[in-house]
Amino acid sequence: MSKNVLALVGYGTIGCGVIEILLKNKDLIQKRTGLELVLKYIVDKDLTTPRNVQYPSAKLTNDYKEALMDEEVNTVIELIGGTGFAYTLIEESLKAGKNVVTANKALLAEKGAPLFKLAQEKSKAIGFEGSVCGGIPIIRTINDSLAGDNIQSVYGIVNGTTNYILTKMLEEKLDFKVALKQAQKLGFAEADPTLDIEGYDAAHKIAILAEIAFNTEIDYQKVYVEGITRLELSDIHNAQELGYVLKLLAIAKLDPDNTVEVRVNPALVPEDNQLASVRNEFNGVLIESSFLTNSLYYGRGAGARPTGTAVIADIIDIAKFNNSSVKTTKRIQFNHYKMKEIGDIESRYYVRFNAFDKSGVLSHITGIFSKYDISIASVIQKERSISDTVPLIMTTHMAKEKNITSALNDIEKLDFTKGRGKLIRIIE
Amino acid sequence: MSKNVLALVGYGTIGCGVIEILLKNKDLIQKRTGLELVLKYIVDKDLTTPRNVQYPSAKLTNDYKEALMDEEVNTVIELIGGTGFAYTLIEESLKAGKNVVTANKALLAEKGAPLFKLAQEKSKAIGFEGSVCGGIPIIRTINDSLAGDNIQSVYGIVNGTTNYILTKMLEEKLDFKVALKQAQKLGFAEADPTLDIEGYDAAHKIAILAEIAFNTEIDYQKVYVEGITRLELSDIHNAQELGYVLKLLAIAKLDPDNTVEVRVNPALVPEDNQLASVRNEFNGVLIESSFLTNSLYYGRGAGARPTGTAVIADIIDIAKFNNSSVKTTKRIQFNHYKMKEIGDIESRYYVRFNAFDKSGVLSHITGIFSKYDISIASVIQKERSISDTVPLIMTTHMAKEKNITSALNDIEKLDFTKGRGKLIRIIE
Repeated sequence: MSKNVLALVGYGTIGCGVIEILLKNKDLIQKRTGLELVLKYIVDKDLTTPRNVQYPSAKLTNDYKEALMDEEVNTVIELIGGTGFAYTLIEESLKAGKNVVTANKALLAEKGAPLFKLAQEKSKAIGFEGSVCGGIPIIRTINDSLAGDNIQSVYGIVNGTTNYILTKMLEEKLDFKVALKQAQKLGFAEADPTLDIEGYDAAHKIAILAEIAFNTEIDYQKVYVEGITRLELSDIHNAQELGYVLKLLAIAKLDPDNTVEVRVNPALVPEDNQLASVRNEFNGVLIESSFLTNSLYYGRGAGARPTGTAVIADIIDIAKFNNSSVKTTKRIQFNHYKMKEIGDIESRYYVRFNAFDKSGVLSHITGIFSKYDISIASVIQKERSISDTVPLIMTTHMAKEKNITSALNDIEKLDFTKGRGKLIRIIE
Repeated sequence: MSKNVLALVGYGTIGCGVIEILLKNKDLIQKRTGLELVLKYIVDKDLTTPRNVQYPSAKLTNDYKEALMDEEVNTVIELIGGTGFAYTLIEESLKAGKNVVTANKALLAEKGAPLFKLAQEKSKAIGFEGSVCGGIPIIRTINDSLAGDNIQSVYGIVNGTTNYILTKMLEEKLDFKVALKQAQKLGFAEADPTLDIEGYDAAHKIAILAEIAFNTEIDYQKVYVEGITRLELSDIHNAQELGYVLKLLAIAKLDPDNTVEVRVNPALVPEDNQLASVRNEFNGVLIESSFLTNSLYYGRGAGARPTGTAVIADIIDIAKFNNSSVKTTKRIQFNHYKMKEIGDIESRYYVRFNAFDKSGVLSHITGIFSKYDISIASVIQKERSISDTVPLIMTTHMAKEKNITSALNDIEKLDFTKGRGKLIRIIE
């Protein structure tokens, strides 16, 4: 029986989830893995707020250094969040010879590189399954199951809040604001939902996935991010009419020119694509690879208990790793791919114009598209409504983003449409 | 750099897939894992048939003992299939101190127990990711990612042949026989499709999954198996009308009375269930567990390249394991659950009668249902067709299988229906 001694820093929601599993399934884990997991320290600056879950034999302290100085402690579990003290904690833990498990996506996406480097130098591991899509084993799948496969792309619904909102907008025809309020009421959205609805949370996650899928460093600042706050209900229903479901996608693609696209944006997903049926607060990640081809991983991407299972799986994995001579951290980078600018990507597009009802509109717009080498796949022009404009919806075949942007600029300058055309990317 | 020397036995389709990955991605694997995988022997009784893929530096031989006697060989890859010589090979490999990787579901389901026991005695590993659902990392997910979670059930579409046939029957209204022919033409079904369409292939897979999910031994002979050969097109379309998709499901459930249900049968799946959107030759496995709740794993469940990725992942995993002091095989059994008889299960049911068009039919049938404590959820009675009977379709709430069988027996004895009522289970 191998004994593995742990210190948990951050006695919050996820921390309580981890403690609950350690308590309830101690025996199960021991029987399955031969490992005895013992929580020796719970560290938090707030020692007074009552929590739902206690681990009686652990020492509750506000001094993390005590845990780091304890030679018996093998692994430090960082569940504080944020990119400030969490960084210091992980750095000091590695320097003290501890392995680290973290669910901190912001930290890893924005400042992960030096930490992984340090871990490698110290022959220690950083487990981070919990940082992306909660309990869905997406890190392990990419790192272990697909270790012998070439990944071409990762398309993910990686943010439960926005997926819940978009599902309600589609299925119950709720406006964005109403759906957001409902999500907040049910605990699927924060009081300040900015990180989620503007796409930054998804951007953190896809940056991490891109790094391990393509074994290259990703500059988080260069990830293109577009959230869901400017989506209109009509676009969701137009998409449906065209056979698509509108989702907020996090996309990482290795293009044939060896540049990497990493972006978060609303996208039209064909309704027979597996991602289209990922509903409500659930997450799903679709991976395209050479040998396995398409595979998808679906489940709860947030919450104390799902994320807790990922943290526990990492602790177990590291306990094995610790006794292994194959010392690899789990973020190996040997490629140096450039990141593609958003203007340089190619995609299919959905465009909606609010067109004034006068003659020649369609011919002028299609003329401009043609000038920029954009080929139109479908057109829906609705009958005149009570407003002074009619919606004119077009989908294009593959086109350069640069070109479509130029076309929209040109069209905006004419008197045929009210405001700028609304652009949404389409995936195949 | 750790060097890992392999011997592959069985130079067939899957074998060629594995060799292709070993050749093409040798460098990638080395960079990602620090492991150099070297194939030293390719063993097959047929050395003359030309193959598409060669591994020039490997010795091609028909003498497997040569590989077993070579001390340099660390892992033997068994890709012969069947339960005869494959058993001997694995047994002798373990006795010779080799780790084993196999994709042989029939062998593991029917005769796995003594092999896993031997592996444990010898502190060697048996990797078997490739035995269930090809490249979908379902074994690793259950064993590693959910190591700290309590699994309640596994519902899988684990056979691509039958899923392809059912998809074509639903979407293109093809008859079973026509759809089967199409599947054979496309290589999704064998010339003799019995193992697939009668459900035995799925039964092998679910027996293996049940063993690792519940850490208990499963007697494969006691797995209840019902294939898709007796399904009628009308049932598929009736199901659709009721909001369900008809799938061949492999089910493993730990019931509250600590008995395990392991069965393969056609089942009505609600159309918003993730399994309903697993189409064509693809597989999908839905796991319910205490902490992660619902998660689903989707991809290609067969074929040389998808299965090859699983075999490679196992080889890598074992190379790490081999250097680890945590010596666990991956099939740990410490529970001793009884298997539930099919008569003792509870389910919701779809029943179709071919009812003669005379008065009192509905009242008599519902009377018998009521006698057996079966509560009816919905009824569809169609108008009289050109035949002498009308289809009468009922769905029930949860009921005991024993009771519904007794009810069908009683109804069959009356003069109200032509033949016996057709019964299909419904999942929630």
